[in-house]
Amino acid sequence: MPVQAIGWSRSGGVRIVDQRALPESLVTRELESGDAVAEAIRTMQVRGAPLIGIAAAMGLVAGLRESRGAGRDAFFHRLRAVADQLAATRPTAVNLGWALARMRRAADATSGSPAEVWERLHAEATAIWEEDREMCRRIGEHGLPLVPDGAQVLTHCNAGALATGGIGTALAPVYLAHAAGRRLHVFVGETRPLLQGARLTAWELGQAGIPCTLIADAAAGALMRQTGIDVVLVGADRIARNGDLANKIGTYALAVLARHHGVPFHCAAPSSTIDSTVPDGDAIPIEQRAPDEVTTFAGRRTAPPGARAVNPAFDVTPARYVTSYVTDRGLVQPPFTS
Amino acid sequence: MPVQAIGWSRSGGVRIVDQRALPESLVTRELESGDAVAEAIRTMQVRGAPLIGIAAAMGLVAGLRESRGAGRDAFFHRLRAVADQLAATRPTAVNLGWALARMRRAADATSGSPAEVWERLHAEATAIWEEDREMCRRIGEHGLPLVPDGAQVLTHCNAGALATGGIGTALAPVYLAHAAGRRLHVFVGETRPLLQGARLTAWELGQAGIPCTLIADAAAGALMRQTGIDVVLVGADRIARNGDLANKIGTYALAVLARHHGVPFHCAAPSSTIDSTVPDGDAIPIEQRAPDEVTTFAGRRTAPPGARAVNPAFDVTPARYVTSYVTDRGLVQPPFTS
Repeated sequence: MPVQAIGWSRSGGVRIVDQRALPESLVTRELESGDAVAEAIRTMQVRGAPLIGIAAAMGLVAGLRESRGAGRDAFFHRLRAVADQLAATRPTAVNLGWALARMRRAADATSGSPAEVWERLHAEATAIWEEDREMCRRIGEHGLPLVPDGAQVLTHCNAGALATGGIGTALAPVYLAHAAGRRLHVFVGETRPLLQGARLTAWELGQAGIPCTLIADAAAGALMRQTGIDVVLVGADRIARNGDLANKIGTYALAVLARHHGVPFHCAAPSSTIDSTVPDGDAIPIEQRAPDEVTTFAGRRTAPPGARAVNPAFDVTPARYVTSYVTDRGLVQPPFTS
Repeated sequence: MPVQAIGWSRSGGVRIVDQRALPESLVTRELESGDAVAEAIRTMQVRGAPLIGIAAAMGLVAGLRESRGAGRDAFFHRLRAVADQLAATRPTAVNLGWALARMRRAADATSGSPAEVWERLHAEATAIWEEDREMCRRIGEHGLPLVPDGAQVLTHCNAGALATGGIGTALAPVYLAHAAGRRLHVFVGETRPLLQGARLTAWELGQAGIPCTLIADAAAGALMRQTGIDVVLVGADRIARNGDLANKIGTYALAVLARHHGVPFHCAAPSSTIDSTVPDGDAIPIEQRAPDEVTTFAGRRTAPPGARAVNPAFDVTPARYVTSYVTDRGLVQPPFTS
């Protein structure tokens, strides 16, 4: 079975797999404060759009444990502060704001003492997590026909168990197809600069016994032309109303290459990834990360001192390149309404 | 001025810049034997199609210094052995075989003592190097109209001074345009797995004072869609008679992306890169390098133990994607005849 990326710690904090340490070490951290969870999201100890939504919701609960004995005003003041801190960690994934807004609505709707509000928040965060597990399973079921026996799948970055509370988004159909006895082969782009494909996807597929082969991102074109890829499966960090999607940098190039080679290109994401307040991809904020993620590797410089780099974490793939959106509600087509 | 990548050492050996050490250190090595030169080519201390042709020719001279006092038969026996060793180092670039064949013809055509044949070989290797410098300059002149003032250029890998005996192939027009006072900006794909773009191209452009920005290879699609690229300039390791070209892995994907975005895609190469004995790209041998170039970086694993990877060093770009071939003989079009 796929790895479990998140959970409650025994003390009521948030237990995560520190994804920066993979594949060299499987490090589990118990995060006891909102600060610690915000730091974990910001530094990508946890990453993946669904997972950071869950982590933020759980982090809000962890960050309010100490305030249960405070007055209601002080509790809600603290709630806003922790939620704002968590919301500011990463800008692109819609799930972060979505999960925090849902938590705030749950708190607002709960009368009684801060301890009672906190219990409600704990239950809400657990519900967000459990719903995500269920969403992953449904995405997998709806996506199952896309990965027939013998399929050669190409994926990018990590949209697997390590990106969600469950069995992943793009990898959910792969896990269910494998469980159903289908023979699959997954090609994985290493996903520079942070190598989530190499470090995370190759790791979790290996743990599950699913055959996979790593490629340099630049090899995807030749792979489609020569080896033959049956289907491209990627996740999404935010999907606009018109279907344009933001996902890990490199996704757009894969979409163009897939179109050019007649390969189906599917985006798998929970319906919570659809942000119907955003009309199109141009309105999705794209996180620009530090250039030194490109100019260094594992502390060693790869580029000369003073070299400039640009490092957008995501790119936008226009809807016209997407064969289908595989969601927990089935295969859907834009425009998406709330 | 661009760096000088190769030369004769004072002792008559081959002086190279060890490109594995860049950009951290500028290490110059004096290689005193054919063995040392073959090792340098095989381990990519020197790389780039034109440069490995020059290095092989010079390495043959270095490897025969000790045989000058031998009999003619022994000298030619040794010549074949060293040439075969040098030819076997890397399979894709045509220049390697081309330069060695030319050296053998020069030897065969020279009567007299081994010392006289050796002098002829020394002169021939020097001529190959000088002709390459001249070819680079001509490629630059013919390519100059392709990089007007203000141009945003995208290149891949290193087809610059570090890949040739002169000012490069794809970068030759860039160097001459910069010298002519044109404002340019060069975007460089880092070129995983061996990062020639980050380590070498960003370094030599920086040395020459030409503005450049490094990107993850996967960012090229978004760069074309959003930032705007005026021209893609790449080199080639071998060009088939019909114009199909082998170049660094990732070149084909850039060609598809360029076509998709209406960006001109030019291949700059000396005419010696054209192998008219090869009908099309399918007949070009593609070097498969060790998977651990993909699964490790600077000695640190990036993928879990046991992870599989494929690592083709090159891909083939069919001729129909190429806007023009910029050679020392001008802009030419296939089919190419000898």
